[in-house]
Amino acid sequence: MALSAFILIEVAGDHTKSAFKTIQRISGVKAVYTVSGSYDLIVQVETENLQTLSDLLLSKIRAVDGVTKTNTCLVLNV
Amino acid sequence: MALSAFILIEVAGDHTKSAFKTIQRISGVKAVYTVSGSYDLIVQVETENLQTLSDLLLSKIRAVDGVTKTNTCLVLNV
Amino acid sequence: MALSAFILIEVAGDHTKSAFKTIQRISGVKAVYTVSGSYDLIVQVETENLQTLSDLLLSKIRAVDGVTKTNTCLVLNV
Amino acid sequence: MALSAFILIEVAGDHTKSAFKTIQRISGVKAVYTVSGSYDLIVQVETENLQTLSDLLLSKIRAVDGVTKTNTCLVLNV
Amino acid sequence: MALSAFILIEVAGDHTKSAFKTIQRISGVKAVYTVSGSYDLIVQVETENLQTLSDLLLSKIRAVDGVTKTNTCLVLNV
Amino acid sequence: MALSAFILIEVAGDHTKSAFKTIQRISGVKAVYTVSGSYDLIVQVETENLQTLSDLLLSKIRAVDGVTKTNTCLVLNV
Amino acid sequence: MALSAFILIEVAGDHTKSAFKTIQRISGVKAVYTVSGSYDLIVQVETENLQTLSDLLLSKIRAVDGVTKTNTCLVLNV
Amino acid sequence: MALSAFILIEVAGDHTKSAFKTIQRISGVKAVYTVSGSYDLIVQVETENLQTLSDLLLSKIRAVDGVTKTNTCLVLNV
Repeated sequence: MALSAFILIEVAGDHTKSAFKTIQRISGVKAVYTVSGSYDLIVQVETENLQTLSDLLLSKIRAVDGVTKTNTCLVLNV
Repeated sequence: MALSAFILIEVAGDHTKSAFKTIQRISGVKAVYTVSGSYDLIVQVETENLQTLSDLLLSKIRAVDGVTKTNTCLVLNV
Repeated sequence: MALSAFILIEVAGDHTKSAFKTIQRISGVKAVYTVSGSYDLIVQVETENLQTLSDLLLSKIRAVDGVTKTNTCLVLNV
Repeated sequence: MALSAFILIEVAGDHTKSAFKTIQRISGVKAVYTVSGSYDLIVQVETENLQTLSDLLLSKIRAVDGVTKTNTCLVLNV
Repeated sequence: MALSAFILIEVAGDHTKSAFKTIQRISGVKAVYTVSGSYDLIVQVETENLQTLSDLLLSKIRAVDGVTKTNTCLVLNV
Repeated sequence: MALSAFILIEVAGDHTKSAFKTIQRISGVKAVYTVSGSYDLIVQVETENLQTLSDLLLSKIRAVDGVTKTNTCLVLNV
Repeated sequence: MALSAFILIEVAGDHTKSAFKTIQRISGVKAVYTVSGSYDLIVQVETENLQTLSDLLLSKIRAVDGVTKTNTCLVLNV
Repeated sequence: MALSAFILIEVAGDHTKSAFKTIQRISGVKAVYTVSGSYDLIVQVETENLQTLSDLLLSKIRAVDGVTKTNTCLVLNV
């Protein structure tokens, strides 16, 4: 069961550009957008299962310099 | 792949007790707690897959009288 | 100057599926996702300019039955 | 009067796994879950009274490396 | 074990004044303040135990006309 | 002591345009802006004292059709 | 015109107890409460005018070690 | 197409005054206000296009010492 999710990210200070570039190169990341509003980056990810989503979020994206807060929105089937 | 999640719920007006009772009887719901703080109910659910989680959330819990907002926290593997 | 944005939407009660279908047919909407987490729908839009974004948001999406709150994230150039 | 509560936790950067392990060993903690969404950890605690809840929250959980914000939801009697 | 708490309240539309007057007369309420900011009313309560706090919150304050959301902050011992 | 404040407003459904027009005509309102993001309207007000600010907020702006939530930011002296 | 306000405070890590003690000694502070929920401290202040409220908030309370975020709720006249 | 926006800013600790002064001198900034409530500064900006808004936000304002979080509200045409 493949899982697709949007990760809404808040970045500290002026790390938005560097975080944007780092996240783009992470495996499983389909697209990254720099946005204005209450979030700084919107990341679209696709993973094979819950285990790989956990790894991607906890060990990869959360480890990127400047990333202070993530809000993960799992895409549901309708 | 079974999915486990906590659903943090805001309830309108004085519907908390009735929503508590209704949600307890929904299949897939393991436990319901009435809480104080910024949420009114915390619901622990376990579903077989993403499709049943979607159904449980969108057609069952969101349809309960008084439920105005849900914040679903998917349990990850660590 | 074309504008691209993500609109994070909160939907009341069990209107998520119907709102999903209605929003999909609105002109300017590129993609709609039903999500779990603190939002219910994520909508990706593309408009020609600020005026059409305003119209799309204020007269189309905000008028969809069940849509209670929108959080618009404008995509920036990096 | 025993008190039961859920503590919704935000963790900084990639400290989620280490915070998970540390919190599991704290006395009074019944269960810890790593979650996706707007929180990173959900902790279920049970304490004898308000004094021990205060101690557990302020001196133990809030002192765990990486824990930046806690939102405590006291379980009510219905 | 007496419990003391602050209840931060959001009120719908122009019901703030009437909610203020109604809440003032509820038993267990020590003080009510109309405030500006992200909340509309701040209510200070004192109850004998968790059961009476639950009743006060769920059956009395949440039933007041116009009260849409409550955020209860339990006073801790330090 | 004159008071100046920004009132950040969330509007329900498609009432943003009508609320914009109604608020523009309220005495004490200096400027109104329709915005995208996590708020729908930003209103700049100037009142003679705290009493007139209270009246403006509680009896005028909060009574406008569609206004569901206000977040008042008092301008401080620096 | 005396001003009364509640300041809702988020504290980083385990600085809640020390921040509590420091804030208690600040002139203009009437009462401090350690709370559970989405805030850590609730501070009640009374100042002579807007200038002294600004000073108290920006130079005193915001300078206390561990204070990361303040949400000031000005008490209105009803 | 000129763009106008309000940037709602949260500032860490007691950096509000210094951030206020630094932001005032940034090109494109029309006005800065120190506010109480859930934000610390409200900045009104006007830029020529989306590219200059991006630069102003990501490279200038987000780089100011003490600025931890920005919430940008783009002014829409009504």
